[in-house]
Amino acid sequence: MEFRTEFDTIGPVKVPADKYWGAQTERSRNNFKIGPAASMPMEVVYGFAYLKKAAAHANCELGVLDEKKKDLISAVCDEILEGKLDDQFPLVVWQTGSGTQSNMNVNEVVANRGHVINGGALTDEKKAIHPNDDVNKSQSSNDTFPTGMHIACYKKVVEVLIPAVERLRNVLDQKAKTFDNVVKIGRTHLMDATPLTVGQEISGWVSQLDHALIAIKNTLPHLAELALGGTAVGTGINTPKGYSELVAKKIADFTGLPFVSAKNKFEALSAHDAIVETHGALKQLAVSLMKVANDVRLLASGPRCGIGEYIIPANEPGSSIMPGKVNPTQSEAVTMLCAQVIGNDVAVTTGGMNGHFQLNVFKPMMAYNLLWSATLLADGCDSFNENCIVGLEPNERRIKENLNNSLMLVTALNTKIGYEKAAKIAKTAHENGTTLKEEAVNLGYLNEEEFDQWVDPSKMIGR
Amino acid sequence: MEFRTEFDTIGPVKVPADKYWGAQTERSRNNFKIGPAASMPMEVVYGFAYLKKAAAHANCELGVLDEKKKDLISAVCDEILEGKLDDQFPLVVWQTGSGTQSNMNVNEVVANRGHVINGGALTDEKKAIHPNDDVNKSQSSNDTFPTGMHIACYKKVVEVLIPAVERLRNVLDQKAKTFDNVVKIGRTHLMDATPLTVGQEISGWVSQLDHALIAIKNTLPHLAELALGGTAVGTGINTPKGYSELVAKKIADFTGLPFVSAKNKFEALSAHDAIVETHGALKQLAVSLMKVANDVRLLASGPRCGIGEYIIPANEPGSSIMPGKVNPTQSEAVTMLCAQVIGNDVAVTTGGMNGHFQLNVFKPMMAYNLLWSATLLADGCDSFNENCIVGLEPNERRIKENLNNSLMLVTALNTKIGYEKAAKIAKTAHENGTTLKEEAVNLGYLNEEEFDQWVDPSKMIGR
Amino acid sequence: MEFRTEFDTIGPVKVPADKYWGAQTERSRNNFKIGPAASMPMEVVYGFAYLKKAAAHANCELGVLDEKKKDLISAVCDEILEGKLDDQFPLVVWQTGSGTQSNMNVNEVVANRGHVINGGALTDEKKAIHPNDDVNKSQSSNDTFPTGMHIACYKKVVEVLIPAVERLRNVLDQKAKTFDNVVKIGRTHLMDATPLTVGQEISGWVSQLDHALIAIKNTLPHLAELALGGTAVGTGINTPKGYSELVAKKIADFTGLPFVSAKNKFEALSAHDAIVETHGALKQLAVSLMKVANDVRLLASGPRCGIGEYIIPANEPGSSIMPGKVNPTQSEAVTMLCAQVIGNDVAVTTGGMNGHFQLNVFKPMMAYNLLWSATLLADGCDSFNENCIVGLEPNERRIKENLNNSLMLVTALNTKIGYEKAAKIAKTAHENGTTLKEEAVNLGYLNEEEFDQWVDPSKMIGR
Amino acid sequence: MEFRTEFDTIGPVKVPADKYWGAQTERSRNNFKIGPAASMPMEVVYGFAYLKKAAAHANCELGVLDEKKKDLISAVCDEILEGKLDDQFPLVVWQTGSGTQSNMNVNEVVANRGHVINGGALTDEKKAIHPNDDVNKSQSSNDTFPTGMHIACYKKVVEVLIPAVERLRNVLDQKAKTFDNVVKIGRTHLMDATPLTVGQEISGWVSQLDHALIAIKNTLPHLAELALGGTAVGTGINTPKGYSELVAKKIADFTGLPFVSAKNKFEALSAHDAIVETHGALKQLAVSLMKVANDVRLLASGPRCGIGEYIIPANEPGSSIMPGKVNPTQSEAVTMLCAQVIGNDVAVTTGGMNGHFQLNVFKPMMAYNLLWSATLLADGCDSFNENCIVGLEPNERRIKENLNNSLMLVTALNTKIGYEKAAKIAKTAHENGTTLKEEAVNLGYLNEEEFDQWVDPSKMIGR
Repeated sequence: MEFRTEFDTIGPVKVPADKYWGAQTERSRNNFKIGPAASMPMEVVYGFAYLKKAAAHANCELGVLDEKKKDLISAVCDEILEGKLDDQFPLVVWQTGSGTQSNMNVNEVVANRGHVINGGALTDEKKAIHPNDDVNKSQSSNDTFPTGMHIACYKKVVEVLIPAVERLRNVLDQKAKTFDNVVKIGRTHLMDATPLTVGQEISGWVSQLDHALIAIKNTLPHLAELALGGTAVGTGINTPKGYSELVAKKIADFTGLPFVSAKNKFEALSAHDAIVETHGALKQLAVSLMKVANDVRLLASGPRCGIGEYIIPANEPGSSIMPGKVNPTQSEAVTMLCAQVIGNDVAVTTGGMNGHFQLNVFKPMMAYNLLWSATLLADGCDSFNENCIVGLEPNERRIKENLNNSLMLVTALNTKIGYEKAAKIAKTAHENGTTLKEEAVNLGYLNEEEFDQWVDPSKMIGR
Repeated sequence: MEFRTEFDTIGPVKVPADKYWGAQTERSRNNFKIGPAASMPMEVVYGFAYLKKAAAHANCELGVLDEKKKDLISAVCDEILEGKLDDQFPLVVWQTGSGTQSNMNVNEVVANRGHVINGGALTDEKKAIHPNDDVNKSQSSNDTFPTGMHIACYKKVVEVLIPAVERLRNVLDQKAKTFDNVVKIGRTHLMDATPLTVGQEISGWVSQLDHALIAIKNTLPHLAELALGGTAVGTGINTPKGYSELVAKKIADFTGLPFVSAKNKFEALSAHDAIVETHGALKQLAVSLMKVANDVRLLASGPRCGIGEYIIPANEPGSSIMPGKVNPTQSEAVTMLCAQVIGNDVAVTTGGMNGHFQLNVFKPMMAYNLLWSATLLADGCDSFNENCIVGLEPNERRIKENLNNSLMLVTALNTKIGYEKAAKIAKTAHENGTTLKEEAVNLGYLNEEEFDQWVDPSKMIGR
Repeated sequence: MEFRTEFDTIGPVKVPADKYWGAQTERSRNNFKIGPAASMPMEVVYGFAYLKKAAAHANCELGVLDEKKKDLISAVCDEILEGKLDDQFPLVVWQTGSGTQSNMNVNEVVANRGHVINGGALTDEKKAIHPNDDVNKSQSSNDTFPTGMHIACYKKVVEVLIPAVERLRNVLDQKAKTFDNVVKIGRTHLMDATPLTVGQEISGWVSQLDHALIAIKNTLPHLAELALGGTAVGTGINTPKGYSELVAKKIADFTGLPFVSAKNKFEALSAHDAIVETHGALKQLAVSLMKVANDVRLLASGPRCGIGEYIIPANEPGSSIMPGKVNPTQSEAVTMLCAQVIGNDVAVTTGGMNGHFQLNVFKPMMAYNLLWSATLLADGCDSFNENCIVGLEPNERRIKENLNNSLMLVTALNTKIGYEKAAKIAKTAHENGTTLKEEAVNLGYLNEEEFDQWVDPSKMIGR
Repeated sequence: MEFRTEFDTIGPVKVPADKYWGAQTERSRNNFKIGPAASMPMEVVYGFAYLKKAAAHANCELGVLDEKKKDLISAVCDEILEGKLDDQFPLVVWQTGSGTQSNMNVNEVVANRGHVINGGALTDEKKAIHPNDDVNKSQSSNDTFPTGMHIACYKKVVEVLIPAVERLRNVLDQKAKTFDNVVKIGRTHLMDATPLTVGQEISGWVSQLDHALIAIKNTLPHLAELALGGTAVGTGINTPKGYSELVAKKIADFTGLPFVSAKNKFEALSAHDAIVETHGALKQLAVSLMKVANDVRLLASGPRCGIGEYIIPANEPGSSIMPGKVNPTQSEAVTMLCAQVIGNDVAVTTGGMNGHFQLNVFKPMMAYNLLWSATLLADGCDSFNENCIVGLEPNERRIKENLNNSLMLVTALNTKIGYEKAAKIAKTAHENGTTLKEEAVNLGYLNEEEFDQWVDPSKMIGR
């Protein structure tokens, strides 16, 4: 491989000749060989592209950066956002906790690529743009990284996650309506209970997702707050007057999302409670999905020796040894990824609580987990929806069988003959393996007609 | 001890003669000897008292319970709420996961005590009130326990926790204002950075608490939803028409809090995402407090060989072996209880994700953890506030010493001479153990007057 | 209430006249009003009693404490261990993170009670024994608290938890043997699979508990290491030569447990990885028990609309609204407490990772969680065992029904006709609602005799 | 792209013409579009290669597979282990929870590639080897996946993680020895305490790592147990006699690691407590490393306004805005990855506790987290070691300054003049900003000579 020599304040470094990155990126590659390369999420890089462009515009407008540099910087940022420079960001999550090196990676790539766009060569000693003095002007890693991660996380949540949850929610809601009159046995403590309809059962899941969506949306205003303008410690040292608000406005314009300048920049650098908050809502969604996916597979269990009340699509051969087996594989994928999200929440919490003084240095890890959890949940909702829920059907034969078998229909008699006599009927039928009606009449508590009139599942569903 | 015999649908049980509880409570005492007795939080019992009273009123108004029974039930509920019957609730958290036995404990105590108020004796075979048919009328454990726990949790959060957090927040806010002009060195990565004021530093903590308060309040509408009226599986079997809304209104009246009937009762029984959601916000508060309490103790560290910029009250001898030692004990108590809350969040999550079908059976454990976390956080905020923050003072001598010593004031020169020359100055001063000014002049980058004019901490704090 | 005045190095404090504790305990009561009083586990106090007695003996033997003081101290420690002074320890867990105040609580009670045993009065200005100079001689909170907590935790684990797990394991093992020939359908992915016996199924649970027991026992050598002798920072300042080993030996003698002096006292004060390690093993046990308790309730589900293959004891009426219902309440209590233990593990981890320099200051919280988790698990195992597992029976009628119904018996044909043809048989029978035998013959893959010979559940269980 | 048509028991599927995988792999690619492709760790695939080869050998030796097929299968497995077929395994972690599709991916690649090695073409209708009947002979996904994951995890832990931890431990141990006589101030509660040496301080970290290594090694026997031979549900259906032990022996031979056949196959399929157990030990290591990395950065804090007692290498420019800044970036990377491992532990726990009946279906997620945590910890130890610890030096000037300044040297006087007088000296010096010696003499408790003789830091370090 060919190399050129780049410099930073520490000294010279050999860098692959064909790459736009510079000395500090290369140092980081060598100093942090932890896990696979380029694990820093590309979404964060794109977040940086938005903010570097916004900063160049704001700096120019406020008279501290000339028009030409602004244009060059903007041009490179646009290239990044078009995905043309994806291979220029080789750094890992497990670097400095402020993400300084990823900030410098962006600074270096923008400066060097800008210089080339401007007609220069990577080996020129003097460049048209300086990574620190121009690209990073009015900025610090300490405010850019949290800004980049907020942009990345906000976009992911509103553009990817929420729509996917809504798609799943809507299909479930439609299923709830379609099967709203299929009466089935209810189950509490895993034991037979009074009846409800398939639609009612599914409506509970819809309601969970609705609440999860509200919870996620509740966290967005905090996530919309941007640290940019705080620079090194939150005071905004080395920024021109009016910069914070202007640069936030630019970012809002460029992304089309309601970003604002954080009211308190000291918090915005030193704590990432906004990430903790949003991830907490993702964890709640994981809890909800775990319930839904578990119910689906339990209700589809069997087909002959389980509950078997729901039929799920047979997407693949279920077993490498048991021929003809169909497994609830989508539920399994969903519950596995929910477990991951629940674990990630503890990672985010651990990072969130360990900031000190003017800086939290768990930024890359926190951003990584939020983006990853959101991706898993979004993809998981779509996969579950398309490959399982869309094809979900009640097994009406089985549902009827179970319903008629159940002893808990006796509950309808509470208001007629009292809890204790009703209990006697149920227990006797259970012991004798008989029906409720037989024992109700045998015990002399009521006659057949009364039984048929009072114990009617279709009247026990609250309508 | 003397006993009387009580009965339930399973058979006779010997019960302490002087207790109001009945057969099912006694069975639970014997079947669940797990941890200390009476661990079911009294707040949940009080929540039950509100709801039993509300149910009696609603049942009466809807014509399914007579006036006299309503009055007796109400009278006992009032006694419970006055704390007169606290010793009648001996059950543990670790019982049936629907809290059925605690529901029955309340039913039995209300029925038996009501019978006694009515002039009867505990040993009477026939009682004025029946625990199931009257006290539990139009109810099931499955909807009463979640209702009781929502009442208990909501009250605790709004009446105890939020005010305590606000008290701490307000004292911190006042401190931020008082010390808003004390310029001090900033620290990022634990390393010396550019200056800010003590007030700015503290304002970051205030902002964290403000966001935590918003996050907690965002969860309240979900927590205000009551399951009551869903009865066994969410369909509302055995309830009179209009009952759900009426009983929720009664509870809102009796508690003075904005409770509403849950829109979807199937969710309200089968999932406790509302508890997960609120506890998630408490976890966020724990994360915030952990940061604040850590900063306080680190800034007060020393007094001679640490940072020593803050002075905290000496509330007690710090060491049993080292004479004269003062320790940040309030910070320690706070961080310990935050760790507990962070752990409790995982317990709540584990319970929340494991509901099946029409019922989540981790109710008592989830209620217990939310109430406990809220108590720890509330008491912790007050203790920290009163015994530490109120007395917190900057050590101005030390602060000045550190500020003047710092090499990061060099950052002010970036916009004058560029990042690279500024770095050279700082590194040379660091190596030689000299001052920035000396090396700035030595290196010929600027003269003394320029240095004094440009490098002025009081101008580096963003004003 | 009457008070007397006590002094410490900070000044005078009013203390309840009838209590043995002194100034520092009283200060702590006032400074840490967090949660209910006296939450510091009594087991830790007893651990302190062992170590204070051991220290007095060692100090005396090494010539730095006179015989009379040693005897007085020992006498009070014995009273503590007999439970006579339980009401003298009012402090909470949420105090200083070194447990200094609980150490001083013990020092003060021992000194004052010793003085009274010696014929003095609590109001005497000069006492026969000094809390710091005598009771705390050759000690610091920093080494006594971790010693006390190791003693408490070790005892709890070996004397309470392990025996309870073994009792449950042994009853399960006996059940496995009793039902070793009851062939039943297996289930993977919750779906019908090839058969096994009830005994084999239960043997898997036994094996989990066996591994959990090994895992717990593996952690004991670390937990047996005592910090005592490290004093303030681990160097053992102010201890006589030979003290560490001697005092550990005394503790081993007094407790009858294999305690040793920690090889590295710096670790023993500054990190509590031993607590993290043992609690990690408790978490593993919780994971195992969660599986077992879940399986029990799922296998007992129904009784008519679930799996219903196991019968569990009906210990109480299951529902306040559904008459005759029997619920798996013991499984519910166990899974709830397992969730708590899993949460506690994160609390312990959070405390464990946040020690700094020469001291971890999350000691009381860590000790509290370990003791609590061990108690919950021990009581939970006994409750589950006695009230559920002892009475567990297979429902042989249901088991047979399910077994004969299953399509997965087709697996036996893999080695005869290949996976693909076997799959064809199963899928056809599933679609047509027919039996395997019918379709096997219809499809012409084998004849009836071959089917009966090859597809025999009793030959499919690996024997 | 060109395609060929492959079949499974569900029907035909179009597969990329140049790939060795077949119908089931392709279905899985389409059914589980969750996160980036090929997230199933390659280590698991290699684990499969070992076991498929071992199974072929065992099957051949036991007479159920012919020599030629055995040789073909072995040849492909060897190619996999040489990394030649890495691009043939495109599946994700988030698939069926038994890993069936990854098992089939291996089966299909081995069968198709074996057929090609044998001179056939991928488009041949009849192949030399059948994925189920030959490659998967005497196996099920249910026993192969846990076997593959145990092989992968065991290898990673003993071949990658443990050596990396040992390297770090050994360098620290050497540092402890080198600086064993540098006396410095100790710190408890972050506050100045009695002295110790740099070597003693570091020895505590070494002791933590030693204990972590023991804890990890304690879990290896459980991890060495292999499920292979249990097939579908643990009974070993469709395996020849003697197969389990023979195939485990083959795997032990091929890997050179002490694998054994799990004593209880029902546990080995239905629970993955071995993964929970080993990951629990990794979490303990993360806790230890968090402490070490935190101490390093706190002790290196400053350089002028912090503690500054340790000097760490300046590997990169620390700040994009503050010139000349050096940050503890290696500590930050380590603490971030420790946070991830701590979160992963909860993911593993969540998966571990949710197995049902004869199968735990969180296998891929559990394997993924263990392998990932081990990689992060191993790489993190090496990075921290090479880029930070190797270059760690005490700042002797600063250390001496702090030591002489400290008031806690007064502790040495406890045994001479008692705790209370010593406290008086320290408090007076603290209030007056004077030295201990001055106040000791002023207060008349001792003279200068006594002070100099008694208060000697070099005698306060326990030697």
